[in-house]
Amino acid sequence: MSEPVVVEVGLGTRAYEILIGPGLLERAGAEIVKRLPGARAAIVTDENVAAAQLQRLKDGLAEAGIEPAVIVLPPGEKTKNFEALQEVVDGVLAARLERGDAVIALGGGVIGDLAGFAAGIARRGMNFVQAPTSLLAQVDSSVGGKTGINSPRGKNLVGVFHQPKLVLADTVALDTLPLREFRAGYAEMAKYGLIDRPDFFAWLEKNWQEVFSGGPARIEAIAQSCRAKADVVARDEFEQGDRALLNLGHTFGHALEAAVGYDGARLVHGEGVAIGMALAHRFSTRMNLASSDDAARVEAHLKAVGLPWRMADIPSDLPDAEGLLSFIAQDKKVKRGALTFILTHGIGKCFIAKDVPASEVLSFLKENLPA
Amino acid sequence: MSEPVVVEVGLGTRAYEILIGPGLLERAGAEIVKRLPGARAAIVTDENVAAAQLQRLKDGLAEAGIEPAVIVLPPGEKTKNFEALQEVVDGVLAARLERGDAVIALGGGVIGDLAGFAAGIARRGMNFVQAPTSLLAQVDSSVGGKTGINSPRGKNLVGVFHQPKLVLADTVALDTLPLREFRAGYAEMAKYGLIDRPDFFAWLEKNWQEVFSGGPARIEAIAQSCRAKADVVARDEFEQGDRALLNLGHTFGHALEAAVGYDGARLVHGEGVAIGMALAHRFSTRMNLASSDDAARVEAHLKAVGLPWRMADIPSDLPDAEGLLSFIAQDKKVKRGALTFILTHGIGKCFIAKDVPASEVLSFLKENLPA
Repeated sequence: MSEPVVVEVGLGTRAYEILIGPGLLERAGAEIVKRLPGARAAIVTDENVAAAQLQRLKDGLAEAGIEPAVIVLPPGEKTKNFEALQEVVDGVLAARLERGDAVIALGGGVIGDLAGFAAGIARRGMNFVQAPTSLLAQVDSSVGGKTGINSPRGKNLVGVFHQPKLVLADTVALDTLPLREFRAGYAEMAKYGLIDRPDFFAWLEKNWQEVFSGGPARIEAIAQSCRAKADVVARDEFEQGDRALLNLGHTFGHALEAAVGYDGARLVHGEGVAIGMALAHRFSTRMNLASSDDAARVEAHLKAVGLPWRMADIPSDLPDAEGLLSFIAQDKKVKRGALTFILTHGIGKCFIAKDVPASEVLSFLKENLPA
Repeated sequence: MSEPVVVEVGLGTRAYEILIGPGLLERAGAEIVKRLPGARAAIVTDENVAAAQLQRLKDGLAEAGIEPAVIVLPPGEKTKNFEALQEVVDGVLAARLERGDAVIALGGGVIGDLAGFAAGIARRGMNFVQAPTSLLAQVDSSVGGKTGINSPRGKNLVGVFHQPKLVLADTVALDTLPLREFRAGYAEMAKYGLIDRPDFFAWLEKNWQEVFSGGPARIEAIAQSCRAKADVVARDEFEQGDRALLNLGHTFGHALEAAVGYDGARLVHGEGVAIGMALAHRFSTRMNLASSDDAARVEAHLKAVGLPWRMADIPSDLPDAEGLLSFIAQDKKVKRGALTFILTHGIGKCFIAKDVPASEVLSFLKENLPA
């Protein structure tokens, strides 16, 4: 295979590399042994990914003499709960893995978040390797060390910061993704352009079809996204400041996901983010922060690639504006009661707005909810 | 009240103070507000401690205008499990506490470990305050940031490193401790002398009766213990090296606790550590590392203060030597299959022994198990 693209995440003693390219699962053993000589391993995956990718990873590990324990979970967002966490931790301990051994997450964001959390708490922290198989996981959730599960009170409210030692983003795995899931990951790619890389957003507007069809443009877009995320994470690992910019679209998006009860048939995470980004731009227009041309440009691009971009695109009923606002207020990006949003002065000009009046949000939601 | 003794834990951006003295619960609000202005709070405690100390802490918080949420759990080691962890996390989220608010552990080691773990994972890490009410918690578990729960596969196998922002060791709380529990905490005090402070061990041999009866000698002994622990933690926060010295007596001790099913009626943690320390010294003698006079001195002191010091002191049956060894091998202080013990060249001369042959341990256990 050709050499993968390498993106460094500069975190001092916790620095690591993201490798991006086709065929990385087949060489997983060699890449792991290079960084963690002598380590044993447990793979955490879900039933769907296991069917498509598990044998490739096992073969890749076997070449380096690693015979992993394997923990297979049901697919879907509902697996991000305390019971599954306990099951993974117990599986890792049952395999008698030690701190220096590796927990490998093979799957999308759900598996990465859950397995990373388990690796962060089993024996108070074990080595962790991400092998993301969805676009969303490759460009977002596998990078940066945020791990966690959902609570009945909200999404990702429980977790730890636990950086991986290595990320293996095998682009072959993307070839079997359903189009809807690819699109959901694409929303997070577009997000990096909208936050602070206007040139990348413009590039996506021109090249999105090639990104969708595969080949060099796709690898380039994944690498650009990982670089964008790595830059933010290196500046602010524990989300004391700038890292919150990555939440563009997420405050509205999380509230919408909670409102549909995390029902992936109605709304998956990346779709919530897409609608949330469009709403954040439209809300910025309403607050006289940005021109409505920019909001329209965001909406048009999301629509062009086939992503939902307004609340009316979510099948069936949503709560009313007050109901949505209470989901927003429970979101963890709240500080002493003030509502924090990522708003924008235009494409690539996002900023953290810490004192957004709830009354303005409420009026905005009322105007934008479908009748 | 008189000014408390202050011990600094030097951890850079995570540095904090341990305050030691009578009446600290009554001034908890003032001390917390000084460090976390504007913070709201949740108290985590158990039924026994709540009856004796909760009102004192609530009054102390009320003076600073803090009205805490209160989460009360059943007392005992069995509470250190996933279900109780989930209950505490949910209670904290239900109170709508944010990252900058404080989870306060009011109780012994079980409550501190559990509440600290919950604080470490709720919203990916909230502020945490320790208000230890047992001697063991004041001299050991409340200092240094180790948090966790037990697994059916072993003690403290699941957890995180999460440093408190403040430790309030109110010595008034010790006056209502049962003697057996005070003794258990004393074992951890003696441990610091045995590890690398021979003068402190000699001081305890002379002054232990005053430490037990209360007054200045007790506060001095607690402060010396906290200083000893803080020194080790500052050198090695994440247990990559020296911190393992604090496990003196714990490898044998954990195995014995597991062997009795964590039944506190038969063996509490500090008692396990006492027997474990005596065994570690006696095993060091058997390995020709230390003189048997030193082992005898340790045994004599533990016996003098009324602590168990040999396996025969545990009521009712234990597993056989093979059974105990398998509990030892599952203990987390294992690296790539080799057994790691804290052994000693004499009083105050402990070291980390990484390649202890299992066969030697097995023979030693056979010789020392009661017939």
